[in-house]
Amino acid sequence: MNRIITLTTDFGLGDGYVAAVKGTLLALAPDAQLVDITHEIAPQNVHDAAFVLANAIPYFPMDAVHLIVVDPGVGSVRRTLAARTARATYVAADNGVLTLVWRHEPPLEIVSLTEPRFWRAGQISHTFHGRDIMGPVAAHLANGVPLSDLGPSITDPVTLDMAEPVEMPDGQLRGEIIYVDRFGNLISNIPADRVSDPIYVDIENRRLPLSRHYAEVPTGKPVALIGSHGYLEIAVREGNANKRLRLGRGAPVVISANRQAEAG
Amino acid sequence: MNRIITLTTDFGLGDGYVAAVKGTLLALAPDAQLVDITHEIAPQNVHDAAFVLANAIPYFPMDAVHLIVVDPGVGSVRRTLAARTARATYVAADNGVLTLVWRHEPPLEIVSLTEPRFWRAGQISHTFHGRDIMGPVAAHLANGVPLSDLGPSITDPVTLDMAEPVEMPDGQLRGEIIYVDRFGNLISNIPADRVSDPIYVDIENRRLPLSRHYAEVPTGKPVALIGSHGYLEIAVREGNANKRLRLGRGAPVVISANRQAEAG
Amino acid sequence: MNRIITLTTDFGLGDGYVAAVKGTLLALAPDAQLVDITHEIAPQNVHDAAFVLANAIPYFPMDAVHLIVVDPGVGSVRRTLAARTARATYVAADNGVLTLVWRHEPPLEIVSLTEPRFWRAGQISHTFHGRDIMGPVAAHLANGVPLSDLGPSITDPVTLDMAEPVEMPDGQLRGEIIYVDRFGNLISNIPADRVSDPIYVDIENRRLPLSRHYAEVPTGKPVALIGSHGYLEIAVREGNANKRLRLGRGAPVVISANRQAEAG
Repeated sequence: MNRIITLTTDFGLGDGYVAAVKGTLLALAPDAQLVDITHEIAPQNVHDAAFVLANAIPYFPMDAVHLIVVDPGVGSVRRTLAARTARATYVAADNGVLTLVWRHEPPLEIVSLTEPRFWRAGQISHTFHGRDIMGPVAAHLANGVPLSDLGPSITDPVTLDMAEPVEMPDGQLRGEIIYVDRFGNLISNIPADRVSDPIYVDIENRRLPLSRHYAEVPTGKPVALIGSHGYLEIAVREGNANKRLRLGRGAPVVISANRQAEAG
Repeated sequence: MNRIITLTTDFGLGDGYVAAVKGTLLALAPDAQLVDITHEIAPQNVHDAAFVLANAIPYFPMDAVHLIVVDPGVGSVRRTLAARTARATYVAADNGVLTLVWRHEPPLEIVSLTEPRFWRAGQISHTFHGRDIMGPVAAHLANGVPLSDLGPSITDPVTLDMAEPVEMPDGQLRGEIIYVDRFGNLISNIPADRVSDPIYVDIENRRLPLSRHYAEVPTGKPVALIGSHGYLEIAVREGNANKRLRLGRGAPVVISANRQAEAG
Repeated sequence: MNRIITLTTDFGLGDGYVAAVKGTLLALAPDAQLVDITHEIAPQNVHDAAFVLANAIPYFPMDAVHLIVVDPGVGSVRRTLAARTARATYVAADNGVLTLVWRHEPPLEIVSLTEPRFWRAGQISHTFHGRDIMGPVAAHLANGVPLSDLGPSITDPVTLDMAEPVEMPDGQLRGEIIYVDRFGNLISNIPADRVSDPIYVDIENRRLPLSRHYAEVPTGKPVALIGSHGYLEIAVREGNANKRLRLGRGAPVVISANRQAEAG
């Protein structure tokens, strides 16, 4: 069983940038098992990356090394980090991309990557720290180099402001769509544990009951349910809610008690 | 040599859903070798998935586990299955996605997945059985769990209706385009063994002879040949037949004996 | 540590063609470690493939086998090749796709693939030599078959004409954009060693100084710098230069001494 290194980037798969990172990883850690999380994060979209990571990383085995290269500030003064939680090791730019992952797995130790002996030998590109700094560091971590060798401890990592659902005076909970997936499913920021059936879900001028799965409504109809991410989600059965309802990121989602159902 | 698990889904690569399945597989079967068949099946398109599977799976080594998650009915009463053929093991929803594969490799045993001890521990999502049921089952199969432990035998799996070519009274064979690939090649449902040269191939108001390869016609010209799938295919040399000929899925393709060539 | 086989194709990931090649490779070389360089080369675009390969392959460990299937002439009389350099082994159609790689790693031995015993057993498709000829040969090479067994030596491989920067009488260097990446970055054919700061970079009716990294200019502004490929590149900070500047492949890029800066 070889050490897993996962890769998450906004590089796309077309240009060979991911391959340059993979070659670098395998040159330093030939026995590592490379697994792609995604390379299709919209360019520089740290928020999307944070959401995707939080929904994939918990399923990986313990002790994986997760390399994340979504890095709008590459080459500037922003720091690059390595961090350790109870479950895994992370390498990323210091831009908050791990904010959501770390809610469930708080970092036990974070270091700033300042030790060039763990970087690519020779010239470091000013525009590709994934290949020249973060990639080599991830490989060394997979090989067992301790975090503390990579640079000084830090305690002030950048955190993303994530939209949070707001409790209203009338008992409603007001959230918003924070992610739209390939299927056009609209994923809100309202977590399952804030949703106790029976409720109404209001989006735009439409009110939906809470369903358990897509097939509870007819094909082509909208449905509100707890998605696989553990968040309230609006979907269209065998259709695309994003296109069909013309709602996207930022659209409000409000839940309120369904007193009629309670009474019934 | 580690056990291969292939993955075929309609998840796309952007959202981390595939990665959640891969993490799940590797957590249970750390030595498995994961190979992607594709994750770009059009959402819920079971017919396309059936075609792609039939053209990729035969090339894999014996004893692979093939996990297919194209599952419009997720969460409803549709069954999920595991099956064994002489060459491989399959895990999929019971929606006919294996219809074409099983023409060449009939299933020797099929079971309905009903034993939760082989599923994800804890809560099962109603919308992501690839991660919570079929993925874990595929990992257990790769680890050597026998099919019969997973649930009761069934003998009535769902089968897809696939369009078949029709023999006409005048000796013509009338088929249709069933798949359009990335190159815009138009792949018909007429298998190589129904095509004996010399023939004419008629599409719309165009008649083509049968060629052996793309380079037999000038750049930009349409060509009819037996494609790598073993079906009659209409292509445009170094071009896109789908766009150039404005023909797509369902377009009729008729072959008839080329008596002139026979006479000549 | 298993032998690496990388794959570079224009197949896209949707149709299962890549999977058919991977299955073929693993059936013959079960311990090979498969790594994708890219499968998103624009159909039949040998120039793009040459550029992407040159920027990814140098980062792979020694002794990898690199399989490249971008092959507009498949089925015609064009040769297929295997070649050995000081660092790696290559399998590709003889169409110049390795021109840029071989500038840095000249081939020590090239053979024409003529020995069918190293190909797929049975019928060879006229349209899919990646699966039926080049794939099997790559697997045999990974297994240690010597190059000389695969066919006769050749010394006249096809070479691509690549646009080269031209030195002008007035001291300017006139190059052009040769590649546009996912981020819309415009990559020129002017290599870093032809660029000595301070210079002006002229594109269309715009003059830029040479920067070191994207973050040296405000968000949304164009910047000229040496990219991670080692070529002069025009980018837009956190934006898309291709769309913003409406410049693409073939657009002229001229550099000239910045005498004002030198004087200053």
